[in-house]
Amino acid sequence: MAEKEEQVVRNKQVILNKYVEGFPKEEDMLVTSSASIKLKVPDGYGGILVKNLYLSCDAYQRILMTHIPNSAAVFGFYNIGSPLFGYGVAQVLDSGHPEFKQGDLVWGVTTWEEYSLLPTPENLVKILHTDVPLSSYAGILGMPGLTAYAGFYKVCNPKKGEKVFISAASSAVGQLVGQFAKLSGCYVVGSTGSKEKVELLKGKLGFDDAFNYKEEQDLEATLKRYFPQGIDIYFDNVGGKTLEAVLLNMRQFGRIAICGMVSQYNLDEQEGVKNLMQLVSGRIRMEGFNVIDHLPKYSEYLEYVLPYIRQGKIVSVEDIAQGLDSAPSGLVGLFTGRNVGKQLIHLSEPH
Amino acid sequence: MAEKEEQVVRNKQVILNKYVEGFPKEEDMLVTSSASIKLKVPDGYGGILVKNLYLSCDAYQRILMTHIPNSAAVFGFYNIGSPLFGYGVAQVLDSGHPEFKQGDLVWGVTTWEEYSLLPTPENLVKILHTDVPLSSYAGILGMPGLTAYAGFYKVCNPKKGEKVFISAASSAVGQLVGQFAKLSGCYVVGSTGSKEKVELLKGKLGFDDAFNYKEEQDLEATLKRYFPQGIDIYFDNVGGKTLEAVLLNMRQFGRIAICGMVSQYNLDEQEGVKNLMQLVSGRIRMEGFNVIDHLPKYSEYLEYVLPYIRQGKIVSVEDIAQGLDSAPSGLVGLFTGRNVGKQLIHLSEPH
Repeated sequence: MAEKEEQVVRNKQVILNKYVEGFPKEEDMLVTSSASIKLKVPDGYGGILVKNLYLSCDAYQRILMTHIPNSAAVFGFYNIGSPLFGYGVAQVLDSGHPEFKQGDLVWGVTTWEEYSLLPTPENLVKILHTDVPLSSYAGILGMPGLTAYAGFYKVCNPKKGEKVFISAASSAVGQLVGQFAKLSGCYVVGSTGSKEKVELLKGKLGFDDAFNYKEEQDLEATLKRYFPQGIDIYFDNVGGKTLEAVLLNMRQFGRIAICGMVSQYNLDEQEGVKNLMQLVSGRIRMEGFNVIDHLPKYSEYLEYVLPYIRQGKIVSVEDIAQGLDSAPSGLVGLFTGRNVGKQLIHLSEPH
Repeated sequence: MAEKEEQVVRNKQVILNKYVEGFPKEEDMLVTSSASIKLKVPDGYGGILVKNLYLSCDAYQRILMTHIPNSAAVFGFYNIGSPLFGYGVAQVLDSGHPEFKQGDLVWGVTTWEEYSLLPTPENLVKILHTDVPLSSYAGILGMPGLTAYAGFYKVCNPKKGEKVFISAASSAVGQLVGQFAKLSGCYVVGSTGSKEKVELLKGKLGFDDAFNYKEEQDLEATLKRYFPQGIDIYFDNVGGKTLEAVLLNMRQFGRIAICGMVSQYNLDEQEGVKNLMQLVSGRIRMEGFNVIDHLPKYSEYLEYVLPYIRQGKIVSVEDIAQGLDSAPSGLVGLFTGRNVGKQLIHLSEPH
């Protein structure tokens, strides 16, 4: 194995090229092959070396691309000239950590490059069930899945028969919340950005109804049409004007889980949201949450969701692009709604 | 008693003269002596006849004075030509209800007049402890007291050592929340609208600190000065720009109880509130509540608060005006901050 220790390979990376203003553009990132990496953990290193298999493109990454210190960032920021980071699926090539060995499959936060040295593998989750596609661990069995589960079941506290509205409903998280809500006996309507996605929601994903928000002039009236008795639960992925219209359509004692506010990420200044007085008259709870607080519930979530996946009762729509070269456009595409379902970048198959 | 059955008296009333636009003015109401009332419940009537002793002036009443259908109103609306209604303390003069008898003292929703026929006395609370001033039942032992108790203990879920910020802190509810928070081992800062009230908060009411918001140019910076480590609990009575600044100063897992949004009541259109993305990054819960949902906790509240009152460990600052003629100016004064503490109107003593 002596010669393998010396093996140094090119390590293609996606680095931040400049801080982003407004909508992100592909040129804000740079795909470079200038770095190389030794395929062995350094002596005494307590972390692991992985080969990245799938990378996940997520809207929250936009927040990390802005140079203005922004307290909305809970993950830190990207640095110019350094690779982006985000959730992904990887395979261990070499390990300096007693709990990880060569060949292990993991999911968690990795960097946007072919090979990564990850110093704190304790934060990764080992993949134990491989009868489901590996890409699932960047989607339904990974961060988006746990986000949907924790946000819907732990924050929204749903009851059978309640009326649920989901924005960005065909997104990685939205499509799962909708399916969880249907399995819980709720009535579910989603908003999304194209006719094709409306059909996806009403067809394959089993939503009771769905609409294309781009075709609606008066969102308050639209929601009144879909929810004549009001909304019990709003799973908010977008914030802004949609939240404002939802507030006027909430039922008493309703709950709003705020998962993200993608409508605000590309603005210089956040929009003001009117109608917050509805919180008082309606005794409404509005709560932000972050999946990282819910990681201890991951095994509970697997127990819940794996049987449904195996029985085909929950499906996951993925939009998989091939290779690191397609990663910048994959990420940028989230903000124009080009992706249909969970946007992933496939880099490699496991050995 | 036959002649008493026939006794008909003048019944002075405060009626709504016109729907209010912007800040309420005394002329929006009219004090009239044109009505009369028989001092006996009608034959077969299941309600009670009361003499009103104290009336409570509350900011939420402004919402009921606007003619635009406004879903923020949970109590209905005032009608032009009819007396206002609101919380008060009264004495039963005659009863058609088996659970109430002549002489009983009660608190609850009554009308702004000398004598009222109240058809559903089940909604009133009988006053059993009379070693404390009767006016307390329109303040610390009435709706404002239970509002403060439920909002702080049930919605905010306080822990010892937490940092609490209260807006409109010298108001009926605010002054109690501050004292409850101190008794719970919290650090408490209040904002209010005059130097005199700042002194009241820091002196008599035992707040750790207080400031006059009218003297602050940059509320975000002001709050950072008073809460360098951030705010755990915000008890919101005002909404608007204050809420916007508070959101930038909340600690992770903070809670915001929305009791009211007095800054918005006199506006044609609600202001938009920025910085809601902080709810996500900070995992913050924001919740509106209404005292009427917490009435079943009233006896629990009495058990909690009566010993403190009797030991002088909780005080209540009241601003009592005399007579129905002073009621319009008492109510209007809430919106310019003229009152110091709980604004009451004293009509009569019990017999």
